[in-house]
Amino acid sequence: MQMQRIWSVDLPAHVGEHVALCGWLHRLRRLSSVTFLVLRDGRGIAQTVLGDEAQLQRATALLPETALRVEGEVVTSAQAPRGAELVVTELHVLEPSVEAPPFELHRPHIPAQLPTILDHAAVSLRHPRHRALWRLAAASVAGFRQALTEQHFTEVFTPKIVETATEGGANVFPVEYFGRHAYLAQSPQFYKQTLVGAFERVFEVGPVFRAEPHDTPRHLNQYTSLDAELGFITDHTTVMAVVERAVRGMWQAICAQAAEETVFLKMESPRGVNQSFRVVDFSDAQQMIEAATGEKIVGEPDLAPAHERWLGEWALREHAQDFVFVTGFPIAKRPFYTHPDPARPAFSNSFDLLFRGLELVTGGQRLHRYADYLAALEARGQDPAPYQSYLDAFKYGMPPHGGFALGLERWVARLAGVANVRETALFPRDLHRLSP
Amino acid sequence: MQMQRIWSVDLPAHVGEHVALCGWLHRLRRLSSVTFLVLRDGRGIAQTVLGDEAQLQRATALLPETALRVEGEVVTSAQAPRGAELVVTELHVLEPSVEAPPFELHRPHIPAQLPTILDHAAVSLRHPRHRALWRLAAASVAGFRQALTEQHFTEVFTPKIVETATEGGANVFPVEYFGRHAYLAQSPQFYKQTLVGAFERVFEVGPVFRAEPHDTPRHLNQYTSLDAELGFITDHTTVMAVVERAVRGMWQAICAQAAEETVFLKMESPRGVNQSFRVVDFSDAQQMIEAATGEKIVGEPDLAPAHERWLGEWALREHAQDFVFVTGFPIAKRPFYTHPDPARPAFSNSFDLLFRGLELVTGGQRLHRYADYLAALEARGQDPAPYQSYLDAFKYGMPPHGGFALGLERWVARLAGVANVRETALFPRDLHRLSP
Repeated sequence: MQMQRIWSVDLPAHVGEHVALCGWLHRLRRLSSVTFLVLRDGRGIAQTVLGDEAQLQRATALLPETALRVEGEVVTSAQAPRGAELVVTELHVLEPSVEAPPFELHRPHIPAQLPTILDHAAVSLRHPRHRALWRLAAASVAGFRQALTEQHFTEVFTPKIVETATEGGANVFPVEYFGRHAYLAQSPQFYKQTLVGAFERVFEVGPVFRAEPHDTPRHLNQYTSLDAELGFITDHTTVMAVVERAVRGMWQAICAQAAEETVFLKMESPRGVNQSFRVVDFSDAQQMIEAATGEKIVGEPDLAPAHERWLGEWALREHAQDFVFVTGFPIAKRPFYTHPDPARPAFSNSFDLLFRGLELVTGGQRLHRYADYLAALEARGQDPAPYQSYLDAFKYGMPPHGGFALGLERWVARLAGVANVRETALFPRDLHRLSP
Repeated sequence: MQMQRIWSVDLPAHVGEHVALCGWLHRLRRLSSVTFLVLRDGRGIAQTVLGDEAQLQRATALLPETALRVEGEVVTSAQAPRGAELVVTELHVLEPSVEAPPFELHRPHIPAQLPTILDHAAVSLRHPRHRALWRLAAASVAGFRQALTEQHFTEVFTPKIVETATEGGANVFPVEYFGRHAYLAQSPQFYKQTLVGAFERVFEVGPVFRAEPHDTPRHLNQYTSLDAELGFITDHTTVMAVVERAVRGMWQAICAQAAEETVFLKMESPRGVNQSFRVVDFSDAQQMIEAATGEKIVGEPDLAPAHERWLGEWALREHAQDFVFVTGFPIAKRPFYTHPDPARPAFSNSFDLLFRGLELVTGGQRLHRYADYLAALEARGQDPAPYQSYLDAFKYGMPPHGGFALGLERWVARLAGVANVRETALFPRDLHRLSP
């Protein structure tokens, strides 16, 4: 019978035993008296010691990334990762590399420019740093789901091929659907609102598609949206409380499931993640920025990226927080389904959550009356006909409700201090990139 | 301060207290001496007792599905769901229905044909039966993820807009991508294989798109695929063991999170879910069917739906199992990335899992050598050029690996005894249906 394979990270629990490891030849490290074959498996990196000259010669002939199975005895070693290493007695090549990888994966950073790194995603995602970045994403999503499931949200999956643009008529990708014109969904907005009627609280984690011809470090044309929607709210502040719990849950899941990755990436904990997030009214924010910078912005309908950065710095400086909610945006710049502030109808019961000076979450209270939808569309000169199957949901006692959407790639990029969201998607899609 | 709202399902824990419930007017039940206002919230149904004639008159004037807040005292009642009901002291209309819903939601089944039910998804998903069906799906997905996470699989999200068809050139939806031709992904197949190199074990839950012009009760043009892939396998049997754990995890999660739904839907437990699933070789299966039915099928390259049904009945009759793996399909009918059976190269290291006589899972071992991919494409007369960015992944020590895909809507339909998968998708997409 074949010896049981163990994971690299479990070596310390097997000291004194004969075990097998499987993984990739990450690097050979030659010291004067010993040569280490550093093996990378799905969970970590193991230091293995080549036992004799014959093994050393065989290993030297192997290309990096060769798939291997090594067997040997586990011994303690102060210098090894986790304090244990494997002294190799058997070295089996499972599959050799056909050629050398385009870059060395054992360097702290891949020695290449981003486009090259993305062109070679099959290799670059094997790099410990890139792998660690994605594991933050995977843990975050698990934390998001757990936080919402605890609050009795039901997970849903909604159509990605739709008849009508959800977030305005432009910026949609056309799809040919059995000879009919259709679009890729820009968000699950209409569906999650509809489903409030059925499940009251829903969330969805899935792809959204924006045909925005932006070429910035903050935009992707497909990204993973973490969406939630809930009914029987008081107003947008009910939703903001759910956002706080969700973001906190994401961070907690990272701490629980990806603690090694946070150390490896030298990440700082997001400040204030376990406190109530600071809230600033949009108009107050404009006045603060105007008073501080002299720039005339009061009366503008939205915040520019520079203003978001200013608020991020302010929140950090004045309140030691990486998070700040901005509420009460002018309704003119928000989508037609946005609920006005009853006391100031030109403003809205909406919010953005800035994280380190960048918009991470957008949300708010939605209109819930059928008549209000008809009026809102009319006020914007929009024909209600294409929206009819969505509007029907509001005929049958839709309670006050609201929700939010959070972009996964932005969250991880901001959290890990990565400048470009293309590094926190596995296979990013942008204006120029359709492959791999 | 406003009284705290509780969930319908928590009424029994509040007997003797004054509480509030929020939800929808599910129905009014008039008995000779008392009228019940049956309230449906996000988690269940509560029986509330109207306290006086004025309340009764107000309630009688309300349309079904009106959103309500009711307050009152919780009392025990042997006839009420869960043994407790609320005696109403306050009845607040949060939002009235604009018109009566197109069908009554308190009947055991919606009194309409499926197309009508689907046209009115915003209402029909509020029906307890339809809601319960979806909650099976949500619990199943949670169980799938947990079973794989326990085995150290990493969750991934991959592109849905792709340059090259994954499962053959036909049956793809064309997308216009900034003036370029692209397709909706038929599966995450290429990406999950590529990611074996990075994470060794990956899973994805997400939409897949099949432009198949089928109009059957088993096919959807967008469905939710539960995909997994893992490296360092022995052969397809390693993958089948993961399938078993995943399916068992899905059922266990239903039992833990949706037990009430299984009772409500009068579901039978899948037989044999906690045992090893029966395995039948494809050729043996053909011989069994031929011997039993007299139909000449030995030599055919695939199983017809009638043969799958026969095997399902056989597994139930002979082994008291609802599950049966069929292995060793002829390689000619499997995708080009399928690994042959080394002992019988005309057959493959692949499998289907039949659940109650219907294909639920497809999987197997994949080719892992770069040269084998080139040869497989050449043997099928396919140009390797469009696959190059995928094929690159196999240049760098890709270990023996395999995986599988499970269709969520089929699983739930089969489990709950629903004839048409359109009933187990929230907003199905088919040949004719793009809305809602």
